[in-house]
Amino acid sequence: MTLRVSVVGASGYVGGELLRLLLWHPEVAVIQATSGRNAGRYLHQVHPNLRGRSKVQFVHPDRLEPCDLLFLALPHGEAAQAIERYAGLAPRLIDCSADFRLRDPALYARWYREEHPAPAWLDRFVYGLPEVSREALRGVNYASGVGCNATATNLALLPLVQAGLVDEQRPVIVEIKVGSSEGGATSSDSSHHPERAGAVRSFAPVGHRHTAEVEMITGLTNVHLSVTSVELVRGALATAHVFANRPVTEKDLWQAYRAFAATQPFVRIVKERQGIYRYPEPKILAGSNFADLGFTLDEATGRIVSICALDNLMKGAAGSAVQCMNLMAGFAEAEGLDFPGLHPI
Amino acid sequence: MTLRVSVVGASGYVGGELLRLLLWHPEVAVIQATSGRNAGRYLHQVHPNLRGRSKVQFVHPDRLEPCDLLFLALPHGEAAQAIERYAGLAPRLIDCSADFRLRDPALYARWYREEHPAPAWLDRFVYGLPEVSREALRGVNYASGVGCNATATNLALLPLVQAGLVDEQRPVIVEIKVGSSEGGATSSDSSHHPERAGAVRSFAPVGHRHTAEVEMITGLTNVHLSVTSVELVRGALATAHVFANRPVTEKDLWQAYRAFAATQPFVRIVKERQGIYRYPEPKILAGSNFADLGFTLDEATGRIVSICALDNLMKGAAGSAVQCMNLMAGFAEAEGLDFPGLHPI
Amino acid sequence: MTLRVSVVGASGYVGGELLRLLLWHPEVAVIQATSGRNAGRYLHQVHPNLRGRSKVQFVHPDRLEPCDLLFLALPHGEAAQAIERYAGLAPRLIDCSADFRLRDPALYARWYREEHPAPAWLDRFVYGLPEVSREALRGVNYASGVGCNATATNLALLPLVQAGLVDEQRPVIVEIKVGSSEGGATSSDSSHHPERAGAVRSFAPVGHRHTAEVEMITGLTNVHLSVTSVELVRGALATAHVFANRPVTEKDLWQAYRAFAATQPFVRIVKERQGIYRYPEPKILAGSNFADLGFTLDEATGRIVSICALDNLMKGAAGSAVQCMNLMAGFAEAEGLDFPGLHPI
Amino acid sequence: MTLRVSVVGASGYVGGELLRLLLWHPEVAVIQATSGRNAGRYLHQVHPNLRGRSKVQFVHPDRLEPCDLLFLALPHGEAAQAIERYAGLAPRLIDCSADFRLRDPALYARWYREEHPAPAWLDRFVYGLPEVSREALRGVNYASGVGCNATATNLALLPLVQAGLVDEQRPVIVEIKVGSSEGGATSSDSSHHPERAGAVRSFAPVGHRHTAEVEMITGLTNVHLSVTSVELVRGALATAHVFANRPVTEKDLWQAYRAFAATQPFVRIVKERQGIYRYPEPKILAGSNFADLGFTLDEATGRIVSICALDNLMKGAAGSAVQCMNLMAGFAEAEGLDFPGLHPI
Repeated sequence: MTLRVSVVGASGYVGGELLRLLLWHPEVAVIQATSGRNAGRYLHQVHPNLRGRSKVQFVHPDRLEPCDLLFLALPHGEAAQAIERYAGLAPRLIDCSADFRLRDPALYARWYREEHPAPAWLDRFVYGLPEVSREALRGVNYASGVGCNATATNLALLPLVQAGLVDEQRPVIVEIKVGSSEGGATSSDSSHHPERAGAVRSFAPVGHRHTAEVEMITGLTNVHLSVTSVELVRGALATAHVFANRPVTEKDLWQAYRAFAATQPFVRIVKERQGIYRYPEPKILAGSNFADLGFTLDEATGRIVSICALDNLMKGAAGSAVQCMNLMAGFAEAEGLDFPGLHPI
Repeated sequence: MTLRVSVVGASGYVGGELLRLLLWHPEVAVIQATSGRNAGRYLHQVHPNLRGRSKVQFVHPDRLEPCDLLFLALPHGEAAQAIERYAGLAPRLIDCSADFRLRDPALYARWYREEHPAPAWLDRFVYGLPEVSREALRGVNYASGVGCNATATNLALLPLVQAGLVDEQRPVIVEIKVGSSEGGATSSDSSHHPERAGAVRSFAPVGHRHTAEVEMITGLTNVHLSVTSVELVRGALATAHVFANRPVTEKDLWQAYRAFAATQPFVRIVKERQGIYRYPEPKILAGSNFADLGFTLDEATGRIVSICALDNLMKGAAGSAVQCMNLMAGFAEAEGLDFPGLHPI
Repeated sequence: MTLRVSVVGASGYVGGELLRLLLWHPEVAVIQATSGRNAGRYLHQVHPNLRGRSKVQFVHPDRLEPCDLLFLALPHGEAAQAIERYAGLAPRLIDCSADFRLRDPALYARWYREEHPAPAWLDRFVYGLPEVSREALRGVNYASGVGCNATATNLALLPLVQAGLVDEQRPVIVEIKVGSSEGGATSSDSSHHPERAGAVRSFAPVGHRHTAEVEMITGLTNVHLSVTSVELVRGALATAHVFANRPVTEKDLWQAYRAFAATQPFVRIVKERQGIYRYPEPKILAGSNFADLGFTLDEATGRIVSICALDNLMKGAAGSAVQCMNLMAGFAEAEGLDFPGLHPI
Repeated sequence: MTLRVSVVGASGYVGGELLRLLLWHPEVAVIQATSGRNAGRYLHQVHPNLRGRSKVQFVHPDRLEPCDLLFLALPHGEAAQAIERYAGLAPRLIDCSADFRLRDPALYARWYREEHPAPAWLDRFVYGLPEVSREALRGVNYASGVGCNATATNLALLPLVQAGLVDEQRPVIVEIKVGSSEGGATSSDSSHHPERAGAVRSFAPVGHRHTAEVEMITGLTNVHLSVTSVELVRGALATAHVFANRPVTEKDLWQAYRAFAATQPFVRIVKERQGIYRYPEPKILAGSNFADLGFTLDEATGRIVSICALDNLMKGAAGSAVQCMNLMAGFAEAEGLDFPGLHPI
């Protein structure tokens, strides 16, 4: 039976990507898409790639009606403020914001510098990254989204964490290179094309909020994030520098990464001896739900460089959210997520 | 019953795009992919977006075996040189090169400056653009490919040609802005990133060979092409300047474009009064098979500007070829071609 | 004796480029730079390339003081509204806007759709393109700026016009590819990086206002402009399609272009038989005051393609304005304008 | 008296940048420019930005004649192989390659995996970064060049090293984001535009040879480099993660950076509380000789992020080399190096 879903905050980039995935999903019907600013316009007037696919028009959020599952793709804080209302409209919620990612209200308060508006709800949400909470997501009603940079970092670190290889006495430095779509659909001076084009901008050299999610998921407390914006629209590449807690070989690392990737339909190991694409490359993942993992070892120093590439709007947001929906609703986990990315692009 | 297909010249960009489409096509099995230089390597070692999808390895062209349908994606001239061999290996051929696009050997000789090596074969091929030869393609055995720039131009002009609006006494100037993938997968000084990045390069201000295809398809002899390379990997935008042969209104033009697009599953009219995407934009078509058409009218002078955007590797090459296959084999015309493109990108 | 100059509207891109040129100009001292929004900030806080060069802070426009020469780099209409005030503050004015480019108030009204606010002033301004009005500019007090796209078009057409080669019975189609800095320093939805990056956007396929300047300078009434935005920050390339009014050879064209360029310090002919840079390329002109001209001839049809590349902020705006200043003040014409552009870039 | 200089290896990108600087340098005359492949061509046929400036043609390296100072801009190893010949042709040499940067032949052998071909010469060269060896360079005859990535790293680290703030017990991780011009002027599969455009490519996550220069200049042995190629032609941004060896405040850091920058004409501190350019940005440095330094402090963890932006062809190669020449020949140190970079770009 077709799942009737609606997308709240559908004019943003995550909202648009959800619509792209859901409109082609064989088990789903898109009932409503809300946008305060674009109410009355057709979906393709905001997301031009959807032209010709749907007669749905944006509706004002006040006119949201009951359905089977609600995707919330709202600015920070808005989902938490109105969570009771949304929960009254649908038995299942997937919230793509940061509002329900953390289990601990104190952690939220520390990184977001305000009290959580609905702390009682935090425990009801499962963290929406199937790579870490697949079984918990099956059949559950509430799932959070994931942070794009947190996800790139977590997936780069988890193979090493799960293999028990991380030296926690030495710092783990993670440099994340990101595209402009991470900043959302609203224009600003910093996104003005003549300024942003070709930039290599130190966006968050310290203090990135996604650190909270990384600590929660990896259990590590020695992770230091640094985010640099580069010329790219979609995509993120996390380069994690980890020191091993004992002598390791490339073979040990292959074992660790293979163990992690084995059961993950959207995780691939990319490590080639030659060619142009020896390591994960975000540009070929645009539109795909894959997270590509690669690694290398500096034998002289024991430094492991672990690399994760993904599309921030897909595996880092809407793709993972749809994957969660598939698990929650009992669909095939990869349903509607089979676009492989383009080459060249 | 599954159609068993092989791709000859599969390491190029058109070959790679064919593989991407065919590996996900529900009616098709990819049997072989040839590459002299990459024989023995896995497909994803050349086309990294195919990683994890197929165990097929490139084979040397000499080892090509019989199958149901052969796609030829070879450099100029190679398909014609060996057409008898290929026709002996498969009952159906789709050739993506320019070798069998023109019906008239004299036209070929004029634009390609050599005699056609297999003129007897020219008549056996149907021109592979379903928008102009859909019925002829149904069930046929041999289809040519299409020129990417010719297709952008033809689709920009055909609505006006079919409506009888083109003044043939005045020149039709067509400026085509193209991405770097049109140059193929082989590197050269002119494709070296520091030189090609950000370029606005007058690639073929006069003398573009695709003029032959435009004359053949539109029947016009007053078309002047000019091709400029811009910063883009995939995509082409043709801007055609046409003078009307009688006073016209925007309404007349809407009628002409609607009449043309009505029966075409992959042609959309893009003409908005506001917003960022008022006219066709190639960037949002990357990976999609759509050709978007738009137009505007300078009422004071009777100049019509007709605009076509497409992905040169899709509607301009592999996408149209798969669409041809669908028609030739009796599949649903749009099968395997439903990727809508991305926004933002 | 040092010329004391001020820049009004100095926080915009033309204003910033004027500051860059003037701060390094050996005959000039920059006295004031106005900006309503940035009053009190240092120049480098808006134009980061000026860091370390000047202690000047932006002042509010109301605090503008008398000086020897005022550059006006204001939004459309503002210079004309307050021209009496500015003329009272400095004996010499160079206005970079479109306000005083046209001599004929009726032409202004037709293209700008409003009456000119100070028609009596139109005759006092000399059109600020030294390539067409060098002698008139020497010692004069008031010069207009030039339109960037108009200048690329005019310089592409003038060699043919001056040689009497243009067929005025057939249309002259000019396709101009432009970078994002032409839109100015104010951000908007259409300049938002995820939307603007990689775009090939039909910005003004018909109705471009610079047509007025082209008609005024070339004397032609059959010119049709079309402007397409491409991925580029600085730079414009005009591709003009002109039909000759009599049989011509490449040699005739060389003669025409050489005659035009001979006396112009900032016009170069770019026409090579081989290499990557066979025709004018805007990317290597970033920051330079050169306008590069190239051409080719389609002998079969008599179509001449004339190509002009320039930096829209330099030869298309601030560079020409400083060149005007040099002529007005009796300095060496090329003073302060010797940056040759970069390769690679 | 004019210094007569020649450039060996003048068709590469560093060679071209040297020519750009030297042709406009008031104290210098360019006598010869060698290129095996381009002998007989004019400079502008390889470096199009030099059009109109010089009548010099490339000569074959065998025809190199004596002059006052030779710039060597050759591929790795070639200068060392023929150093006796070059030293016989000019009393002064500036070698831009890595051949004479290291003082210790063992260090060379370790990182370049071969014995140095002319170890006796190593001691005669002064390391060509005026920021570290200004006094030694004055009047000397032989100077090495600098590694672009090494320079970005060294300048990011030196303020902290000189202030004695680096904890040598914890690793220093340096992530360097680089443009495509670092790969030189020779095209390859990896520089092919459709592959390189928009890439975020893990070029050298471990094992970067410039580590040797960093160890030599900073004296640190705990530095780990990682180089990622991004969409950019010119420019490099080094992001260094350093842990302080004692509690520090932002004020301490300001003091350290100011102390370092105070005497350096081409080092600027970039650290703003607001605006788009709060940290160093390589794109606005294209063509300039500045190295911009910025920093921030994560007070909770004692992590200092030190950031250096520069143009790899200028401060990272040709610019520093010309600065060396100025010091060696007794010219003003900044002569010929005053281009400030562009905004926007």
